[in-house]
Amino acid sequence: MKEFLHEVADSVQNAVTRRDMNWGEDLGLGADGTTTSLIDKVAEDLVVEIFQEEYPDINILSEELGYMDNGGENTLVLDPIDGTYNATHGFPFFSLSMAIGNQTMSDCHYGLVRHLTSGVSYWAEKGKGAFKDGIPIKPSQPKRDKLVLAAYLGQETSDRGFQIAHIPRRVRAYGSAALEICMVAEGMLDGFHLSSKKGYRDLRVVDIAAATLILREAGGEVYDDDGNPVDLPFKVNARSQVLAVGDKVVLEWIK
Amino acid sequence: MKEFLHEVADSVQNAVTRRDMNWGEDLGLGADGTTTSLIDKVAEDLVVEIFQEEYPDINILSEELGYMDNGGENTLVLDPIDGTYNATHGFPFFSLSMAIGNQTMSDCHYGLVRHLTSGVSYWAEKGKGAFKDGIPIKPSQPKRDKLVLAAYLGQETSDRGFQIAHIPRRVRAYGSAALEICMVAEGMLDGFHLSSKKGYRDLRVVDIAAATLILREAGGEVYDDDGNPVDLPFKVNARSQVLAVGDKVVLEWIK
Repeated sequence: MKEFLHEVADSVQNAVTRRDMNWGEDLGLGADGTTTSLIDKVAEDLVVEIFQEEYPDINILSEELGYMDNGGENTLVLDPIDGTYNATHGFPFFSLSMAIGNQTMSDCHYGLVRHLTSGVSYWAEKGKGAFKDGIPIKPSQPKRDKLVLAAYLGQETSDRGFQIAHIPRRVRAYGSAALEICMVAEGMLDGFHLSSKKGYRDLRVVDIAAATLILREAGGEVYDDDGNPVDLPFKVNARSQVLAVGDKVVLEWIK
Repeated sequence: MKEFLHEVADSVQNAVTRRDMNWGEDLGLGADGTTTSLIDKVAEDLVVEIFQEEYPDINILSEELGYMDNGGENTLVLDPIDGTYNATHGFPFFSLSMAIGNQTMSDCHYGLVRHLTSGVSYWAEKGKGAFKDGIPIKPSQPKRDKLVLAAYLGQETSDRGFQIAHIPRRVRAYGSAALEICMVAEGMLDGFHLSSKKGYRDLRVVDIAAATLILREAGGEVYDDDGNPVDLPFKVNARSQVLAVGDKVVLEWIK
């Protein structure tokens, strides 16, 4: 499965880095109620096609199509493009996320996040650690006076989100949650936070299933705003606030 | 001068993308009172050496060395590395800035910002437009409900900075002000804002001289928090808040 998922990611990367397409073309609303751009559709169709060919009994949960029940025990939890805005505006920071599990995030056994312009792969298999291009990764040892957090900010951010943004020495906002959680796993960020007003823009299981497994296998954790580890069922509209940290001490510092 | 500045940027890019150096090594405080890392020092020394060889009468104002008076009319306003934190933590988004002028930002005649990992060059010559790798650039036509601003956020951000961060649909924070201002010039961002508590971390003339010329030549403007166009003298500690916009309408939207 590891090799297969990496090959799927290669196919998507080859497809979406073509420069002769209008990737930002608006195709209307996907199953989750957010807009679909051409790049989302092309990437999703490609992954679904390859899975249907090679593993026709794996169910598929994805941002645009919703839930495809193929009668199997396992489900592919797919975000074809995380960071669509970046992808369609020329900023080379967006990713493909794929996790394989049974019913919820906590039983995922494989997770792959592919940075689609650099080609870097973040990978985890449950119980076997987390890797970046094959090399084991671990989170940072954060320093309180040099804390670096990525955060989701703007008109839809919750009060809690802004409160947290006042605390670190540096705040970053790169625009792909899956990659930002992987950056926590590899120690380039001390944490990542997203919570939205009324929860409408909180993260979905497709956004975070793969990256959460990677971070947990690296030694970190993903919490909601109540401080509980996040677990979401494989449903297209299951959402949670996310506070991803490499070291639990960060929870104390941002109280 | 255009060709020469691009060659200087090539030399710096070749030097600092070597992987066998401990680029984050801390070398103490520079002339502006901020810490100097090995990458800052190597890049600055290289630019100064090349200028001293080819244009020994051009004065140099730079982040680490301060002001070197070589008796000429023109001054190189140099930020050897903007985005040192990114550079020393493996995030490929940092830049070299060089402007040539007489005494203040407003009389700069050349500006070059080089993205040191992608190799992209943003260039402007006063009165002759702004270019990205030789192709003319212009700012976005912003949409109020889809506004995208880059912002400087964290414990040192002013109240005004946080107030602005509540307004756009998307906030980004990439960690290199010069590149973020260039992204406004090319329409990838609708604006960029930085203002700090008590002004200690406001931007310096070395950070913004080149990018400001590029944005102005592209059709945008750089304002302070009072709404006045920014002009700073060539002094190592001259600082200003920065609100860089491609279109003046953004000023109204974030009032």
